[in-house]
Amino acid sequence: MARVAIVGVGHSKFGKRSDASLRELAFEAYSDALDDAEIESSSIDGSVVCSATHYDKQRSPAGVVAEYLGLNPKPTFNVEAACASSAVGLRTAWSLVSSGLHDVIAVVGVQKMTELASREIQELMGRAGDVMWESPFGTTMPAYYAMYATAHMARYGTTEEDMAAVTVKNRKYGTKNAKAMFQKTVSIEDVLKSRPVSTPLKLFDCCANADGAACLLVANATKARKITDRPVWVAGLGLASSPMALAGRHGPMTSFEVTKNAAKSAYEMARVKASDIDVAEVHDSFSITEILNYEDLGFARPGKGPKLLKDEETELGGKIPVNIDGGLISKGHPVGATGASQITSIVQQLRKEAGDVQVDGAKIGLAQNIGGIGMYCSVTILRS
Amino acid sequence: MARVAIVGVGHSKFGKRSDASLRELAFEAYSDALDDAEIESSSIDGSVVCSATHYDKQRSPAGVVAEYLGLNPKPTFNVEAACASSAVGLRTAWSLVSSGLHDVIAVVGVQKMTELASREIQELMGRAGDVMWESPFGTTMPAYYAMYATAHMARYGTTEEDMAAVTVKNRKYGTKNAKAMFQKTVSIEDVLKSRPVSTPLKLFDCCANADGAACLLVANATKARKITDRPVWVAGLGLASSPMALAGRHGPMTSFEVTKNAAKSAYEMARVKASDIDVAEVHDSFSITEILNYEDLGFARPGKGPKLLKDEETELGGKIPVNIDGGLISKGHPVGATGASQITSIVQQLRKEAGDVQVDGAKIGLAQNIGGIGMYCSVTILRS
Repeated sequence: MARVAIVGVGHSKFGKRSDASLRELAFEAYSDALDDAEIESSSIDGSVVCSATHYDKQRSPAGVVAEYLGLNPKPTFNVEAACASSAVGLRTAWSLVSSGLHDVIAVVGVQKMTELASREIQELMGRAGDVMWESPFGTTMPAYYAMYATAHMARYGTTEEDMAAVTVKNRKYGTKNAKAMFQKTVSIEDVLKSRPVSTPLKLFDCCANADGAACLLVANATKARKITDRPVWVAGLGLASSPMALAGRHGPMTSFEVTKNAAKSAYEMARVKASDIDVAEVHDSFSITEILNYEDLGFARPGKGPKLLKDEETELGGKIPVNIDGGLISKGHPVGATGASQITSIVQQLRKEAGDVQVDGAKIGLAQNIGGIGMYCSVTILRS
Repeated sequence: MARVAIVGVGHSKFGKRSDASLRELAFEAYSDALDDAEIESSSIDGSVVCSATHYDKQRSPAGVVAEYLGLNPKPTFNVEAACASSAVGLRTAWSLVSSGLHDVIAVVGVQKMTELASREIQELMGRAGDVMWESPFGTTMPAYYAMYATAHMARYGTTEEDMAAVTVKNRKYGTKNAKAMFQKTVSIEDVLKSRPVSTPLKLFDCCANADGAACLLVANATKARKITDRPVWVAGLGLASSPMALAGRHGPMTSFEVTKNAAKSAYEMARVKASDIDVAEVHDSFSITEILNYEDLGFARPGKGPKLLKDEETELGGKIPVNIDGGLISKGHPVGATGASQITSIVQQLRKEAGDVQVDGAKIGLAQNIGGIGMYCSVTILRS
């Protein structure tokens, strides 16, 4: 398989962006990525737009985004895998480039959510669960993940404090990320006292709906070497699926098979193992999700996620720093943009451009992005 | 670039399918394709689901479709380019296979539309136009295409009878297609007398919203030769974009630049020219669209589309038979399924399995699929 690199990354400010439309958010990230790569838009062969329709009125977002970025008449289309859309967008762009069909592709993850009322968003998000068997019974995303949290607590004795510690860690690093929605620390106490959303998950256990965009410029080896002297190579691309309906799944609700499967594919393709990873971004849609991900990615043994965190191994300076860009919990979760945002942070780490949160000697990084209630998982492994 | 073939095709009955949900429609087409290729589901490495969300309640359709098809834990995601979704799905699957990432991929185009009232569908379809500058002013899809019709009439003297003749031709061939929504002939008179939708387009000038699914099984050369002795090779894959907003386009509204660009790419990749094409499926969302497509694909000179039709050159037995499976006008237009449906018909032609409508000696076929009001166009060229 032909080698493919990320040659530029861009990121809009995430948050409640009443000042920017969908297309404008996309432009922020795209122009940032062009500046980062020091190339012109004319060098781009086409775009893969990644947006989990439809939190705003615009249908078929690739059309309006490609127009606004000045990318007509080049190919464009939309890739969607719920919250994992733009990680899957990178895999798609990788294929378009690795196959020889294109030389340089822009992956543009973008979402405009906050024009809807929070309850409308929850209704739409719930419909990324099974609308025949589950969502009519109230399975919004917090409710789904709360069931996983409860199961982990019952089986392994995980506590609400253990989960709160994820938020405390991620919000601490969020203070270093100018693009994050939340840049203030919170305490364990703050998390525990925040209002219940879906027991045992409270407000500060949950990431926030947000507007935002992130962009990855992807090139074949020849172009990559011409464009930049700091390419970051795509080494592993794991993608797996799981039944959408919980009733279709096997085993206890204390882990996501989909993550294990995606990780296995990605580790095999990259020829590395969990212990080789120097820095990771994992999908902390809820505090419990990060704990499950530690275990499913092989950073900790089953049930030992909370201990990994307590031992400060996922902190900067630890064995495997996780979400030290603040994670979804600090950055917010503009669904279509999240995967590309995680990958942007890993690219910055591997280029040694992560500033205050730089991991010394980081050479291999991982980004894990879950779609919906785990019907998709993408694991991306990058190398400097 | 590594060679890729279509090794199996499947097609559900199109129409008002109150008897089948989204997932069931997908299964109809998928199981039909497995039967066609004489392989088991275990031979499939993953799926690319193509659906223009969200004409039904289910969000993130790839999740529920992959589950229902029994394709977990294999990779899946959704590709969307409005009405061109599953043609773009084929291009995406081609890349996944040609790059070496996968061996055999199922492209599943599916749409469930008719649970919505017609006016709701029109509202949602209109939002595949620009929601900031155009759709609030009433630009539903018929209104958009009516403007193109009016321009073609004004510039070239095209008449309502000329457009009606497209419907008459396509409905005639629709009588031979058991999967088509409409299987009755209509006369020029019937079309002219049908009720106005958006002048000059009348009811019978318009394709119908429908439920349906179509599936393409795509394999690399090694697998293709093992699976089947009648592979159909993907020779050209053109994809282009155009500004979503009409105001962003140049030139008269008598042709689609996006089709010309996509055709140019596809012809170049396949190393053929328009006159080499033996049989074609083109996007007859409206009767006028087929006329524009004749011209934009190079089958007729500008303004000469109606003459090509009058001369019976696009009939079975003519120089370039077009939409002899009945086209969207007979089959109905389940948005996400349409591209794969067109390609299915071309595959059957190139395998000499098109029965009553077989084109003698067909070796090179073309399918053209427009997304929205021409912000996307895909041109696929296949060879036996």
